[in-house]
Amino acid sequence: MSDSQYRVVFQPQGRAVSVLECTTILEAAAIAGLVIDTPCGGAGTCGKCRVQMPQGAPEPSDTDRKVFTKAELESGWRLACRSLVKVDAVVQVPTGSLFGGDQQIARDSSVGGPAEMRPAIRKVYVELSPPTLEDPRPDLLRLEEKTGPFKVDVAMLRHAPGRLRQQGYKGTAVLSDHQLIDIEEGDTTKRCLGVAVDVGTTTMVASLLNLCDGRELAVVARMNPQVSFGDDVLSRIEHSTSCPHCLDELRQTVAREIAGMIRALCDEAGIDARFIYEATFAGNTTMQHLLCGVDPSPLGAVPFAPAYARGVLLSARDLEIPINPHGTCYVFPIIGGFVGGDTVAGMLATGIDTSDGPTLLVDIGTNGEIVLAHEGKLLAASTAAGPAFEGARISCGMRGARGAMEKVLLDGDVHLGVIGNVAPMGICGSGLIDLAAEMLRVGIVSPEGRLRPREELPTGLSPALAGRVRTDNGGGVVFVLAEPGAGVSRKSLSITQRDIRKLQLGCGAIRAGISILMRQAGLAPKDLKTILIAGGFGGFIRRDKAQRIGLLPPEVDHQRIHYVGNASLAGARWALLSVEARKHGEELARRARHVELSVDGGFQAEFAEAMIFPGG
Amino acid sequence: MSDSQYRVVFQPQGRAVSVLECTTILEAAAIAGLVIDTPCGGAGTCGKCRVQMPQGAPEPSDTDRKVFTKAELESGWRLACRSLVKVDAVVQVPTGSLFGGDQQIARDSSVGGPAEMRPAIRKVYVELSPPTLEDPRPDLLRLEEKTGPFKVDVAMLRHAPGRLRQQGYKGTAVLSDHQLIDIEEGDTTKRCLGVAVDVGTTTMVASLLNLCDGRELAVVARMNPQVSFGDDVLSRIEHSTSCPHCLDELRQTVAREIAGMIRALCDEAGIDARFIYEATFAGNTTMQHLLCGVDPSPLGAVPFAPAYARGVLLSARDLEIPINPHGTCYVFPIIGGFVGGDTVAGMLATGIDTSDGPTLLVDIGTNGEIVLAHEGKLLAASTAAGPAFEGARISCGMRGARGAMEKVLLDGDVHLGVIGNVAPMGICGSGLIDLAAEMLRVGIVSPEGRLRPREELPTGLSPALAGRVRTDNGGGVVFVLAEPGAGVSRKSLSITQRDIRKLQLGCGAIRAGISILMRQAGLAPKDLKTILIAGGFGGFIRRDKAQRIGLLPPEVDHQRIHYVGNASLAGARWALLSVEARKHGEELARRARHVELSVDGGFQAEFAEAMIFPGG
Repeated sequence: MSDSQYRVVFQPQGRAVSVLECTTILEAAAIAGLVIDTPCGGAGTCGKCRVQMPQGAPEPSDTDRKVFTKAELESGWRLACRSLVKVDAVVQVPTGSLFGGDQQIARDSSVGGPAEMRPAIRKVYVELSPPTLEDPRPDLLRLEEKTGPFKVDVAMLRHAPGRLRQQGYKGTAVLSDHQLIDIEEGDTTKRCLGVAVDVGTTTMVASLLNLCDGRELAVVARMNPQVSFGDDVLSRIEHSTSCPHCLDELRQTVAREIAGMIRALCDEAGIDARFIYEATFAGNTTMQHLLCGVDPSPLGAVPFAPAYARGVLLSARDLEIPINPHGTCYVFPIIGGFVGGDTVAGMLATGIDTSDGPTLLVDIGTNGEIVLAHEGKLLAASTAAGPAFEGARISCGMRGARGAMEKVLLDGDVHLGVIGNVAPMGICGSGLIDLAAEMLRVGIVSPEGRLRPREELPTGLSPALAGRVRTDNGGGVVFVLAEPGAGVSRKSLSITQRDIRKLQLGCGAIRAGISILMRQAGLAPKDLKTILIAGGFGGFIRRDKAQRIGLLPPEVDHQRIHYVGNASLAGARWALLSVEARKHGEELARRARHVELSVDGGFQAEFAEAMIFPGG
Repeated sequence: MSDSQYRVVFQPQGRAVSVLECTTILEAAAIAGLVIDTPCGGAGTCGKCRVQMPQGAPEPSDTDRKVFTKAELESGWRLACRSLVKVDAVVQVPTGSLFGGDQQIARDSSVGGPAEMRPAIRKVYVELSPPTLEDPRPDLLRLEEKTGPFKVDVAMLRHAPGRLRQQGYKGTAVLSDHQLIDIEEGDTTKRCLGVAVDVGTTTMVASLLNLCDGRELAVVARMNPQVSFGDDVLSRIEHSTSCPHCLDELRQTVAREIAGMIRALCDEAGIDARFIYEATFAGNTTMQHLLCGVDPSPLGAVPFAPAYARGVLLSARDLEIPINPHGTCYVFPIIGGFVGGDTVAGMLATGIDTSDGPTLLVDIGTNGEIVLAHEGKLLAASTAAGPAFEGARISCGMRGARGAMEKVLLDGDVHLGVIGNVAPMGICGSGLIDLAAEMLRVGIVSPEGRLRPREELPTGLSPALAGRVRTDNGGGVVFVLAEPGAGVSRKSLSITQRDIRKLQLGCGAIRAGISILMRQAGLAPKDLKTILIAGGFGGFIRRDKAQRIGLLPPEVDHQRIHYVGNASLAGARWALLSVEARKHGEELARRARHVELSVDGGFQAEFAEAMIFPGG
């Protein structure tokens, strides 16, 4: 495993990611949220994952030479599963190589390019003839002739005519749906931006998009500062009711952080926030209630009924989101008390409703959301997995950012992949899954999840690994991943028994949810045509490792599992770029049936069983 | 002429008016805004103005006896033109007796009864099943199943679910179009009110309507307090630009007065203003700009282009109109710089676009608005008539309220009809027209408009009348209408030469406008099938008197002239009671062609000619 990191840009989607050396293009694409179709599971046998690399194409593999002609190889055609990143690269992804093929591209028009895009925000540059005695028509009527009919609120009614006159009846009209929201000087049609935000319980990610062509200009991820009021949604719901101003305090806390994220996005892209006219938000039901300042207390008690259901279009000013003051915020529709807008966004972005054969979408976060699509039906459930998968509340856990151990291999000693190619500062979700799977494989952890003390370790274990199993001050067994050193935290980075238990609880919650949805649909794991894994682990989730620890059903063929990245954020992007996608999301939210796991009599048993690692 | 006053209630419209004894039912209906069809001009020959009077029916006239059977007479059937009010009365007006017949009633569904009404405001009482684990659907989705889909703003999103829960999932949802604007405790569906406001330059009238059945619960008229910044629109436009806060000062001035009017309406009807969910406003272009706080300065200079054109739906809170805080305000569409929402409202309420034959609508106020409908075309113009017709800026002028001389007859001496049957306090528009016509007839005023000094009076003039022609302190000739006395103002009530000139200017402006519209349409006055006179004179305008002073073309047969009352207010009522009417108003505003009189080369000549009273 190498320590170097390279930038890979995917076209025509315009998405860029930084990956470790020797990451496959297939993995890099998944990290960028692009699911390249691999019926063979990336084994190099089906020849479907064709991409063209105008820059940074590696030496053709033997498989490449079988699949492509010499001319094709020379013009950079490669199989994504066989090509390793060794330098900065540009990758052209043909429509046919994406999972779902044309259909996905056609629906993910946002990403495909402006021809298919239809954002709610529209800018029109106009040059109007000034009124004369012969043609004294009203200012806004003159404007409407160029833009089509629109509505105005009182602020725009007072503002727009004067602006038009000051600007000599020239300027750029900004329309949100059929509402006039601004008039700008000069031709600013090219400066038309939106922000898509995934409001996670633990992590928030915001993406700045150019609404003219759908390109992503910047992304920023931050901790949801509401964690200071509790890790999980229930403790935040409790806090919201603990004092008269507590709900508003929670709302302000998240709004201020999002404001900071928007400033960071603007700084990175070098743009003015007044050119951002819309923000879309996808989060779980509680997060969306808190963002909107809606009392979430009914979500904290049986029967967990949310306040609202449909997507809502609110004023950015009302939500204190510092984009253009006349801008709007779209908050995703909700399925139920614990299946929120993030799930709807994920369903939208993965096109799960049109998938071929039984398909499972598992969004792994503090709340694990599970959707099963089968014969036109959509079942959705959520399960409290805890923040372990986001690297939170783990002894040395951290978000999937620079310094995070995102890959772990135990081979004689510990081998680490660290984001940003720096000294390790902590472990993120994907690293933790790797680590648990590896410790289980080499016997440091028992199938029941017990971190074995040194005297109980398997005899064949390497001395280096055995030496990392120690006892901490409190007498508990720990596994040391990294010793203190220059550039690293002053303490060693270790995993404790409690960390393993948290991971087990998370795995168990998700596996139990999957089992119950499958059972309610009358399906067995082997019936699944596809499993789509979504989440922000910080890296590409290793399917075999996830199956090894029982997070995913081991019965499902490895090649049917695909990582789709942050699907909630992807869905929020779609809603920003296409009003049709937004409508489709509304439809999905109403079509999905909310399965309340706690009502299912089998949940406790499934959960207890799923807690044990496979083989236990 | 008598001094007693009686109350006449018209059914099924529910409108009530107080009129002087011996007013005809035809006149009383016109004052109430109901145009009873009289092809014979009220001569008692056509027999079309049939009404039934369950209460207060006078002795049948000879004509009644010819037209009705004995049984009909016994059940109160009378001709409206032959029946004089001598006691309080209730009058049933059959659809067929109204001008425009079925068509008008069908369109004026508001007035006709709830079967035809469709206000933008809708109230629905709901009893929802509370959420359970088996059915945990979101609160607002449960509500939507009873009300149909709606949108919410952030305030309602925060407010409505909690209210629903507090009220045990029962209550009354209030919807404005497809927006949820309130949730009330209990069944309040019967308490659903709206306010229609005519925002005149000089006089404002507000009408409180029950949106369930269209009945008017109260009416109030007040002076527009902006008169303190100038009588006419131009001086107010000037004031609005004279300091940075002057525009807002003008807006607040009118908003505060309307707030006072709404409080008065609520007091009179004994209701709470929170049950008023919508207000509609019709005024001239400048008044509407000022009401909305939109800079009117372009209306003060060539080419007089307004800021906006379409009707706008604004938040009552934004406009500081104290109805339900989530309520809305509809401000009428505008035709041009000086042809505003009041004209559109008048066109709407009179159904002028569907009239049979060339029809002229003349709205007589500080701004005179004139609309000509001919062969499907609508021409609209406005002309600055000054406030004389509203009784303002006349030596002893006043609004058509209690104490106003609204009828004047010179027959040996002065005979007055005074509103409210009290001692006279001033003269209103209709009284002034009467007075001028009478002074012209008896020769106190010359056809050129000169108030003759006593020595030049005609020899046959009665000594009593001659004795009223005096010289004031400044040496000017005056005509004394009422001497000082108990209960009257301490000064005598007189008409001066300047008052006559003001009336001449007003008549001239309106007649010139009529002439130019007629000429542009290629019509002569005799071609007119109908003239509809609108305005708030305080009383029923006497058609012969209006023709005598040249306000209306003398060539038009007397019977083709109808008084339609405050058509602007009537249109505002329609918009409140029917979204279809509102849409039709929008269409009328866009269909009408704005004729800018000052651009017409013939205006000055027409104006100069029209200034002279006919016969001069």
